[in-house]
Amino acid sequence: MLQSFDARADGAAGPARLAALRATLDEAGLAGFMVPRADAHMGENVAPRDERLAWLTGFTGSAGFCIAGAREAALFVDGRYTLQAAQQTAAEAFTVVFSAETPPEKWLESHAQAGERWAYDPWLHPRAEIDRLTRAAEAAGAVLVPHANLVDAIWEDQPAPPAVPATPHDVALAGRTSADKRRALGEDLAAAKLHAAAITLPDSIAWLLNIRGGDAARMPAVHAFALLHRDGRVALFADPAKFGPEVRAHLGNEIMIEPPEAFEAALDALRGARVAVDKDSAPAAVSDRLVATGAEVVWRRDPCILPKACKTPEELDGSRAAHRRDGAAMANFLHWLDGALEGVRTGARLTEIEVVEALEGFRAETGALADISFETICGAGPNGAIVHYRVTRESDRAVTPDSLLLIDSGGQYRDGTTDITRTVFTGGTAPEGAAIAYTAVLRGMIELAAARWPEGLEGRHLDALARAPLWAEGLDYDHGTGHGVGAYLGVHEGPASLSRRSAEPIRPGMILSDEPGCYRAGAWGIRIENLVTVTPPAIPGDGERAMLAFETLTLAPIDRALILPDRLGPDARAWLDAYHARVLAEIGPLVGADVRAWLTDACAPL
Amino acid sequence: MLQSFDARADGAAGPARLAALRATLDEAGLAGFMVPRADAHMGENVAPRDERLAWLTGFTGSAGFCIAGAREAALFVDGRYTLQAAQQTAAEAFTVVFSAETPPEKWLESHAQAGERWAYDPWLHPRAEIDRLTRAAEAAGAVLVPHANLVDAIWEDQPAPPAVPATPHDVALAGRTSADKRRALGEDLAAAKLHAAAITLPDSIAWLLNIRGGDAARMPAVHAFALLHRDGRVALFADPAKFGPEVRAHLGNEIMIEPPEAFEAALDALRGARVAVDKDSAPAAVSDRLVATGAEVVWRRDPCILPKACKTPEELDGSRAAHRRDGAAMANFLHWLDGALEGVRTGARLTEIEVVEALEGFRAETGALADISFETICGAGPNGAIVHYRVTRESDRAVTPDSLLLIDSGGQYRDGTTDITRTVFTGGTAPEGAAIAYTAVLRGMIELAAARWPEGLEGRHLDALARAPLWAEGLDYDHGTGHGVGAYLGVHEGPASLSRRSAEPIRPGMILSDEPGCYRAGAWGIRIENLVTVTPPAIPGDGERAMLAFETLTLAPIDRALILPDRLGPDARAWLDAYHARVLAEIGPLVGADVRAWLTDACAPL
Repeated sequence: MLQSFDARADGAAGPARLAALRATLDEAGLAGFMVPRADAHMGENVAPRDERLAWLTGFTGSAGFCIAGAREAALFVDGRYTLQAAQQTAAEAFTVVFSAETPPEKWLESHAQAGERWAYDPWLHPRAEIDRLTRAAEAAGAVLVPHANLVDAIWEDQPAPPAVPATPHDVALAGRTSADKRRALGEDLAAAKLHAAAITLPDSIAWLLNIRGGDAARMPAVHAFALLHRDGRVALFADPAKFGPEVRAHLGNEIMIEPPEAFEAALDALRGARVAVDKDSAPAAVSDRLVATGAEVVWRRDPCILPKACKTPEELDGSRAAHRRDGAAMANFLHWLDGALEGVRTGARLTEIEVVEALEGFRAETGALADISFETICGAGPNGAIVHYRVTRESDRAVTPDSLLLIDSGGQYRDGTTDITRTVFTGGTAPEGAAIAYTAVLRGMIELAAARWPEGLEGRHLDALARAPLWAEGLDYDHGTGHGVGAYLGVHEGPASLSRRSAEPIRPGMILSDEPGCYRAGAWGIRIENLVTVTPPAIPGDGERAMLAFETLTLAPIDRALILPDRLGPDARAWLDAYHARVLAEIGPLVGADVRAWLTDACAPL
Repeated sequence: MLQSFDARADGAAGPARLAALRATLDEAGLAGFMVPRADAHMGENVAPRDERLAWLTGFTGSAGFCIAGAREAALFVDGRYTLQAAQQTAAEAFTVVFSAETPPEKWLESHAQAGERWAYDPWLHPRAEIDRLTRAAEAAGAVLVPHANLVDAIWEDQPAPPAVPATPHDVALAGRTSADKRRALGEDLAAAKLHAAAITLPDSIAWLLNIRGGDAARMPAVHAFALLHRDGRVALFADPAKFGPEVRAHLGNEIMIEPPEAFEAALDALRGARVAVDKDSAPAAVSDRLVATGAEVVWRRDPCILPKACKTPEELDGSRAAHRRDGAAMANFLHWLDGALEGVRTGARLTEIEVVEALEGFRAETGALADISFETICGAGPNGAIVHYRVTRESDRAVTPDSLLLIDSGGQYRDGTTDITRTVFTGGTAPEGAAIAYTAVLRGMIELAAARWPEGLEGRHLDALARAPLWAEGLDYDHGTGHGVGAYLGVHEGPASLSRRSAEPIRPGMILSDEPGCYRAGAWGIRIENLVTVTPPAIPGDGERAMLAFETLTLAPIDRALILPDRLGPDARAWLDAYHARVLAEIGPLVGADVRAWLTDACAPL
């Protein structure tokens, strides 16, 4: 079982650990220390060694930031986590701060005192973040200084860094050789009169070198730093033990593997060079070292991010294969769930954890599951309204009739990453408002999936298409409509997204999620999610403009129980019937006879 | 007749005038002079005295910019005007430059030489524009200096400044007294620790003081400058002859009227004060003078712009009344056009100018038409595809069967400003692609008109709703979806618009146009435009969110000849039928029996 349902931290230990940290502050003459929920690679998941925030405070959310001051310690969390942070942490030690109102820099400006020194570990913050915090400290007359990590200094049983072996990623799946990618990016560097680029994001390195790994959960990449030179050679700084003979042969002689300790000396050797560094993802330590040695730092987005997002035809074929495999697992699961819900309606007990376990079991049965792509969100009834809900032994809730069950999950397969949400009516009487909301969410998902648009538009120009059917009912949702998805890499991958704020053009080959939702606190949550890829439309249309459209990748039936056909409208209804016919045609042959019979019903026209 | 069909400038005189200008450059030791298509009030229409660009070059478009250099003179125009500019100007004198590729500052940077002095009239450019040009000149080692206007120096028969009498604008129409508006804005100034605001836009002054005028065509405002003090008093700098006893009594004793020449001395008197100035609309001369005298200039958007855009209930009632009146005139016109087109199909001649004259005649018959709100765009066949088309005696084209006729027009009434576009099929055989495009444009207009959305969204978040039905056919249009409209003020009024670029939130009370289109060069143009106002939705919907919606103001039938009902879809079809029923109910009683009978047919359900 990949997913765990245990609480991962111990809030009761927080006050003692904070006291120990304060003792080190005192010794070092510091007024406070920054403890982000981050590692040097800015990933969404961090290795156990890097769970400093959870270890110190007890808070286990996926985003947070602590400023442990000598007088007061503040834990900054976003709106998803204010309740959870208060529950998990000791109130006498940590003040929970709502970061949208008071971001860390604002707090620092009002809490720092003139002459004080506040410190941070320069490997755990990008330069852009340190710039904000520095301005805040200076506005208060204090200074912000880099320092060795004070949590590491007091964390006696801190786990070792992860050391999962790297593996080759077959060029038949990647579609481009590493040499080709490195040559192309090297030419871009040369054209911009740059000598090298520092690359610190594990998925960028994995893409660039056609390797995979497992140093952080759910993200099959290798923790490493890299320097890409403009001749296409790469110096890779990572634990050499992770690189066995097979992967070394695969990497070839243009990739030099050196231990992480050699990275700083390699930066020093760039004196006089022009080096591209990503201000929003590279640790401040990298650019600071380059500046100190006399290199010219040129702020540029990590050059792998955009080409990685635009998948090759081979990556898209892999994704299609992964989605057929995952679709068969989903069909097996939804068929099982249908039976289990029949039991629930006649008195049997079924809990969220049992649902998660069953789903992971069906994915594991494919024989190809490398990992789940994120912790499954399985929310029964009111838990479905908690957008970031992760079931634990304590929160585990029984699935009941007259209710909704929301399941958001995905798999990591060597040929592709999946992410799918289905919301299922548990039978009986539909909760108030659920049918109207379900129909509006489905219509929104379909309107976006069926859209075409002129090349060049950004996520913020398309977001409304998924929301308009909800708006028409006075409804909306407080999250983005979609995020980028990697090719056997991160299930949340930049740079593009479908949201009100995204200024990134949507380009051919990108894989994005399409996941509108609707939530009634204390009652139910609805979300329907398919992955799509961006492609020129199959039928170009009447005009002469270059248009783009989506191809839907996800193949699994969408519960029809709550759909109000008139409100869905004829266009969306025709789309749904065609989608279900496609699901049956592609997935039907991949499942057993029982499931196929069930799938035939589930995919019948509305 | 308000609209004129004569060409307004003489391109043949351009070379001699340019030579005369160059002689003054030589005398003044200047390398070039800027000639914008602008007056000191940055209006869309300028008075004859301010038509310096047209006088010098012959180019009569509504947007343009000339840099008359001693060696070369460049005329910068946008994509709408490249052809027209080349036709109207003497090629041996002026180089037409496409401003989207080479804006004036880019040209200046590559054409100015070290040590040269280039000059501009500081009353004809906002500071933001001069900043850009100054940076460009300095990058070339040259300087940009303010100077008395060199065109005025050589233009012997330059018309006098306009002196149209100002009139009171009834508070029953405005909904707020000037004292109330001035007090509210004065309090905002005080809260921001500002002493005064410079206001140089005529429509801002007209709104603030509840007056109207006619110094520029189509915009019923008074050319003036104003200083709003934080106690609510206003010093108004304008030709005192424009203010008769009635309007002086209306203005009251908190408004001091002084001649324009007194403005600079009044700015000098603000030494030591903090003064708000709009960098994008106030002439550079204003802020330069304040800086020189020792005032502190604080860059702020003209404080009238936002409250002016959010109409009062009385202004909205006025607009509704104006739209009923204008709708009756449109019904009379469309009935007449229907008959005229029947004649065309049996051999009679009908030209664009005759159509424009007839339409203006029906508006004038209302007895309430103060002005047209802009030059009517009436494009037959291929002329409909020229988005900015204005018919002249030379371009006048016969309306023919088997074709489309696009008519975009509006009226200025004391109670409101209208702007409406209808596209009419002339009968016979529909041109290729026209029915699909017409249906998509109509569906787009309706999808936006029927939309609701959560408060706070910007124009760029809603623009896609009008375009998605066109995108679905591979079509789009290269203009915004909608612009703000004034209350008996400018037909193009900021700050909000519905377009891909607009970051201004759409607020209750704003009046906007909803005008998607589709154009096939050399064949036809389609645009359908209604005005709408922003309002909380009549039925709040199922959710708990604060939502906004549009109320449609325009009341005139939409030609049904080319609609493909299946492609329109049931929701848009129901909207159209309900709209037509409303048009018949509200306009039917206002027209004669013949027109009412025609209107009954025109408004029948699809």
